[in-house]
Amino acid sequence: MKRNISIEGLDQIPIERQRIELVERKCLGHPDSIADGVAESISRALSAAYLEECGVVLHHNTDQGEVVAGESIPQFGGGVITKPIYVLLSGRATKSFNGTNIPADAIAMEAARNYIKEILPTLNMDRDITVDSRMGMGSTDLRDVFQSCGTATIPRANDTSFGVGYAPFSEAESIVAGVAAYLDDQMRPKYPVIGQDCKIMCLRDGDDITLTVAMAFVDRYCASLDEYVEMKQFIQEQLAAVAKGLTTRKVTVAVNTADDIASESVFLTVSGTSAEMGDDGSVGRGNRANGLITPNRPMSMEATSGKNPINHIGKIYNLLANQIAADCVAKVDGIEEIYIRMLSQIGYPIDQPHVASAQVLTRPGTKVATVTSEIESIIDEWLEDVTSITERVIRGELKTF
Amino acid sequence: MKRNISIEGLDQIPIERQRIELVERKCLGHPDSIADGVAESISRALSAAYLEECGVVLHHNTDQGEVVAGESIPQFGGGVITKPIYVLLSGRATKSFNGTNIPADAIAMEAARNYIKEILPTLNMDRDITVDSRMGMGSTDLRDVFQSCGTATIPRANDTSFGVGYAPFSEAESIVAGVAAYLDDQMRPKYPVIGQDCKIMCLRDGDDITLTVAMAFVDRYCASLDEYVEMKQFIQEQLAAVAKGLTTRKVTVAVNTADDIASESVFLTVSGTSAEMGDDGSVGRGNRANGLITPNRPMSMEATSGKNPINHIGKIYNLLANQIAADCVAKVDGIEEIYIRMLSQIGYPIDQPHVASAQVLTRPGTKVATVTSEIESIIDEWLEDVTSITERVIRGELKTF
Amino acid sequence: MKRNISIEGLDQIPIERQRIELVERKCLGHPDSIADGVAESISRALSAAYLEECGVVLHHNTDQGEVVAGESIPQFGGGVITKPIYVLLSGRATKSFNGTNIPADAIAMEAARNYIKEILPTLNMDRDITVDSRMGMGSTDLRDVFQSCGTATIPRANDTSFGVGYAPFSEAESIVAGVAAYLDDQMRPKYPVIGQDCKIMCLRDGDDITLTVAMAFVDRYCASLDEYVEMKQFIQEQLAAVAKGLTTRKVTVAVNTADDIASESVFLTVSGTSAEMGDDGSVGRGNRANGLITPNRPMSMEATSGKNPINHIGKIYNLLANQIAADCVAKVDGIEEIYIRMLSQIGYPIDQPHVASAQVLTRPGTKVATVTSEIESIIDEWLEDVTSITERVIRGELKTF
Amino acid sequence: MKRNISIEGLDQIPIERQRIELVERKCLGHPDSIADGVAESISRALSAAYLEECGVVLHHNTDQGEVVAGESIPQFGGGVITKPIYVLLSGRATKSFNGTNIPADAIAMEAARNYIKEILPTLNMDRDITVDSRMGMGSTDLRDVFQSCGTATIPRANDTSFGVGYAPFSEAESIVAGVAAYLDDQMRPKYPVIGQDCKIMCLRDGDDITLTVAMAFVDRYCASLDEYVEMKQFIQEQLAAVAKGLTTRKVTVAVNTADDIASESVFLTVSGTSAEMGDDGSVGRGNRANGLITPNRPMSMEATSGKNPINHIGKIYNLLANQIAADCVAKVDGIEEIYIRMLSQIGYPIDQPHVASAQVLTRPGTKVATVTSEIESIIDEWLEDVTSITERVIRGELKTF
Repeated sequence: MKRNISIEGLDQIPIERQRIELVERKCLGHPDSIADGVAESISRALSAAYLEECGVVLHHNTDQGEVVAGESIPQFGGGVITKPIYVLLSGRATKSFNGTNIPADAIAMEAARNYIKEILPTLNMDRDITVDSRMGMGSTDLRDVFQSCGTATIPRANDTSFGVGYAPFSEAESIVAGVAAYLDDQMRPKYPVIGQDCKIMCLRDGDDITLTVAMAFVDRYCASLDEYVEMKQFIQEQLAAVAKGLTTRKVTVAVNTADDIASESVFLTVSGTSAEMGDDGSVGRGNRANGLITPNRPMSMEATSGKNPINHIGKIYNLLANQIAADCVAKVDGIEEIYIRMLSQIGYPIDQPHVASAQVLTRPGTKVATVTSEIESIIDEWLEDVTSITERVIRGELKTF
Repeated sequence: MKRNISIEGLDQIPIERQRIELVERKCLGHPDSIADGVAESISRALSAAYLEECGVVLHHNTDQGEVVAGESIPQFGGGVITKPIYVLLSGRATKSFNGTNIPADAIAMEAARNYIKEILPTLNMDRDITVDSRMGMGSTDLRDVFQSCGTATIPRANDTSFGVGYAPFSEAESIVAGVAAYLDDQMRPKYPVIGQDCKIMCLRDGDDITLTVAMAFVDRYCASLDEYVEMKQFIQEQLAAVAKGLTTRKVTVAVNTADDIASESVFLTVSGTSAEMGDDGSVGRGNRANGLITPNRPMSMEATSGKNPINHIGKIYNLLANQIAADCVAKVDGIEEIYIRMLSQIGYPIDQPHVASAQVLTRPGTKVATVTSEIESIIDEWLEDVTSITERVIRGELKTF
Repeated sequence: MKRNISIEGLDQIPIERQRIELVERKCLGHPDSIADGVAESISRALSAAYLEECGVVLHHNTDQGEVVAGESIPQFGGGVITKPIYVLLSGRATKSFNGTNIPADAIAMEAARNYIKEILPTLNMDRDITVDSRMGMGSTDLRDVFQSCGTATIPRANDTSFGVGYAPFSEAESIVAGVAAYLDDQMRPKYPVIGQDCKIMCLRDGDDITLTVAMAFVDRYCASLDEYVEMKQFIQEQLAAVAKGLTTRKVTVAVNTADDIASESVFLTVSGTSAEMGDDGSVGRGNRANGLITPNRPMSMEATSGKNPINHIGKIYNLLANQIAADCVAKVDGIEEIYIRMLSQIGYPIDQPHVASAQVLTRPGTKVATVTSEIESIIDEWLEDVTSITERVIRGELKTF
Repeated sequence: MKRNISIEGLDQIPIERQRIELVERKCLGHPDSIADGVAESISRALSAAYLEECGVVLHHNTDQGEVVAGESIPQFGGGVITKPIYVLLSGRATKSFNGTNIPADAIAMEAARNYIKEILPTLNMDRDITVDSRMGMGSTDLRDVFQSCGTATIPRANDTSFGVGYAPFSEAESIVAGVAAYLDDQMRPKYPVIGQDCKIMCLRDGDDITLTVAMAFVDRYCASLDEYVEMKQFIQEQLAAVAKGLTTRKVTVAVNTADDIASESVFLTVSGTSAEMGDDGSVGRGNRANGLITPNRPMSMEATSGKNPINHIGKIYNLLANQIAADCVAKVDGIEEIYIRMLSQIGYPIDQPHVASAQVLTRPGTKVATVTSEIESIIDEWLEDVTSITERVIRGELKTF
């Protein structure tokens, strides 16, 4: 059956020429990202277990859960967490299938704890955190639909819903992504004082870029207020250098602007996350599927993390739309911006969306008509191969937040 | 100090002329909306208590929490909830101030239970629900900033963040809002079989509008499958009539499309919400501040519900931006669409945003220049009077989801 | 089959002639008693539901659970509970049987909340308490054994265990029971300032009896410290009068001896129970099956409350032993003291204990031999009719703590 | 001040000549014992932290808490726990003192998890258990009393309460204690198939001793039903040999009598405790302070585990009474049985009990008068040195259950 693919030209001011642009990323240790990461790690662990035990990924949606903040008394040289962080696991999963029992709660617990252990290496897992599962069973109707996907046929959409994606990243977006990667890959391994909980906000006002970073310092690696101030200054310089390498615009970087040095009120933590002392987190409240929060761009409200990767449109189409957009930009000349929207119809195979729509802003000199068929082919091929998204998610090759 | 207000013309295809438009609303009984409503009712109750006890709204953010689904066995004529719904209250609140103790947990519990009682009149509050509070205290830094707002000065922004709003509603948006209001105000009072958990999704594909409604039926008010089918048909007709009154486009209405009548697999519930049997809910995952989910429009990821109404930009600026947009459309001729974005700067008075920007798509024949000063005045007046948003929120006059 | 009943004479100093005797009762509002009462009310509610739905009481043991104290700020004229009491329901119950689903969690919640509402009328059930169920399913082995009791045959013992009972009450025991009854039946209805949480301890040292009463006052019914002191004095006098009516020994009554009037440190509460502010409670930690704690007498460690009344020896034999002892004293002349011990054998019918033993201390002039056959007959009759204990428990006619 | 010590002769049938005697021990992995062990380990960890931070043991009572059973599917060769065990920590502790913060919840969590890890080495701590703390603060009155104990004076009793102890062990008691020790010290190290959850019940009926052992087998160490049966037989023989070494009476040992081999319904577990699948546990519901449950002996209902070791009579006097009794038997000739009861008076120094009473049953040929002064001296010395009990508890030298 021919797929319903729609390509239209877009007549709007390109993102780089809009006056105000705002981009944000909550790094892995931010409470909302912890919630997302836990949710996704549970889904992956369940998928792996289902495949091993039953040969098929069974119904589950673990895109729920709450990180309830603890209390702590950080201090230079090393403080204490006085009240453990509480992580509630909810959502639902299949616990028995055709006579096979799958210990879904135990799998979820282990996946959650292992993930947190990895993300927050300075957190004492036997002392500073409680992980509690109240996962339920799914509603019967959806489960029935689901089980049919054990066959070779394409799974059917769980809902009438949609996904969005776009490419390429704007300069501001590239800066946020680049700075985040630099922090995670280059700096933290060398400077463990840099906690995992960083929130990077980029405001571009015309050609002025302001990067505001809220960064949890880890107290045991910071001996004094002087060291804190010095390190903060050093990090600011490093990040400014990274950012300047990605743009010719004017860049200002400010780390922990809310600090009041005089009163020693600074962003110091025991474990590197504000979840230890006041900030709760929830699944789906942070980064979108491309790792950013981009109010200047169309966004989906769906939590990508934790949803089942077989037939949940809120997961698959969001990931797919981003892949398609990037692929179009990589392969087709003359695209300034491309926006992909995929709309499903409940109960229909997911390779047959109700409509897959591309809106293209072409570069000066390129007509929409000249790129239409190429884009259509790319979309069609991705849809043909839609289950590869599922496989890559399960293997952990696609990030969801 | 002069405010930084920026007005620019917008050069894009008006929403009504875009091919695909998607609009959604999760009504009050949807699990995500229950979470939002609980969060906001707690914030309002705390604000009232703080005002009464301390003469000032103290720091709190209750924009967190999780509705963990129960289990139920609905049946025509009346079934049972077998496992209670579990509602976790989290977030943070000030529990003592200047020697006065405020029973924040107790206030939160009561507000949550009263709200749920009102929304789900068929839920047995002594049997089918557990409300549990794990609310904490805020982090000290923010609290310090906060307390200064007891003075006559304008509160200072809690964060560098932003709010968005637009006007007017598109036809599809008006239809979703209108159908939701008709269900709540006209139909449910007469037909208690209509549960509070309705999800209304509107897809406009060119001039074809499809309204898909997932509606929980309340089993005690539905004697048989025949009655269910009949009622569903009746509701479809009623909603179609309402929708048709709001557009000249072609409208199709489908209620509970996932039903399988033959196998009696229908959307029947004991209490009118799917939270009783499998669907969890979280704060901030559903409707935006204008009551809708609108992927074709700029959206903020911030949860408006539950945030403190004094200085939390994620709440105040989202509400304010919608008010300003609507006011502009009401008072200024020639506006086709207007988008308002308000960006704060942490620590600065909230009546002095970093920038308040309006993007205007004018009607044919209206030049942007002719509306600029009027719009600027409106924005300036609203900012001058920004604390009125706070007051109206506390009085419950502004809806947050 | 002849029952194994053993009667032997006892050669020991009668209780009234022992120098030191200690007797205690935790009244209904004491945290341990709240836990017991909740446990037993759940078992009764489940039994009733099982009987109605399945015609037979199914396996359950709800002799578990924890009352976690809240926090409060009592004050004369009326204070507040600042942190709700948390009640965890655990234990296990059958949730489905032969295709019938029994909403055990919902039944437990409702029974618990209704019981607490009744016991603590001043507690705001929507504000000051959270009841949370984590009840599980029983282990399969026991369930198998259990289901056979649906037949007309006598249930089989769930365990090798025992029950104890004795009669008559000593003077000290009668005083504690009498004072507790007077408080509950005569005084509290007139003086609501008397909270439900009273602990009555009686020490008899030779012929000196000291009655120490720890009694929670309800703040809304007590306007001032003066009123508190006056009321305390009045209650002391009333209780002394009651006690003196039950003994010719010297009696001293002291209420709330830990009070420090000068510093206003008194036993004042908002709701009439110390569970609101610091004292936790557990099932089976308070009164034994006869309503008292009697270290001078043989006691069973088994929690009687909450156990299933069909085949749980820890419940049935404790209740039965007390009934038998009282019956013997009522019907047989010449008994000074009688102690009954009933020992079961797992898997055997409960009317055929491994041994039912009576130890009799006869009055001067009565030989053991002369009462042996009468006592044996009484024991045999009660065992013949053992299932009547079950019935009376379900009807709420037998108190378990 | 002279202490009130009372010694009286006892005129009763010695335990060994009573017809029926019942003795029980719940070993370390029994759910009630897990709860006791967790409670005591928390108290010890808190005491150590208080001493280190404040130089004095601050107020706490952690003699509360609940082990809520999980669910499991044991199978020969190794099964899975499908739903984690949930451990609720409650009770109360001082969290700040004179400006010093003590992370009581974190200390409790760590102590609990470390203890469980040690007791249940086959339990996966990251997968099969949730430990959750809801510990509160104590009520102010008691705290006030308590803080005075920082001085050199003797602490004051927290309550009017009592402790009991006796010596020597009867044959049945020695057998239970001996068999338990043999299991723990000799057999389990060699045979890890023997789970920590063993309940040993000894019934002596005249000169017939029946030892009934309910013992959780660990599935990963048991390849088949045949192995199970063989091992059970082997254990029975070993335990019988141990028991026979302690008595000349006839001994029968039966392990897991509820097994039904034909239907493979046996006591197999994944982790060695029935807490993994249906059996809850609570503090204070199992062994008394001497490690046994002895319905033929006077018992205290107080939970010894978890109570503060400074001034909580329910802990100190129970431990002390057992020490005194054993010391008397060791040092004084001619004692057949001795029972010690220590009664406190709230607010008075704990070395000055209201009364310390000894009841002595002397051996034929020994008159009570000849042992009175020796016993009195021993009691007086122990009271003089009462704080040594506290110290030994904190050092872990005295077992509490």
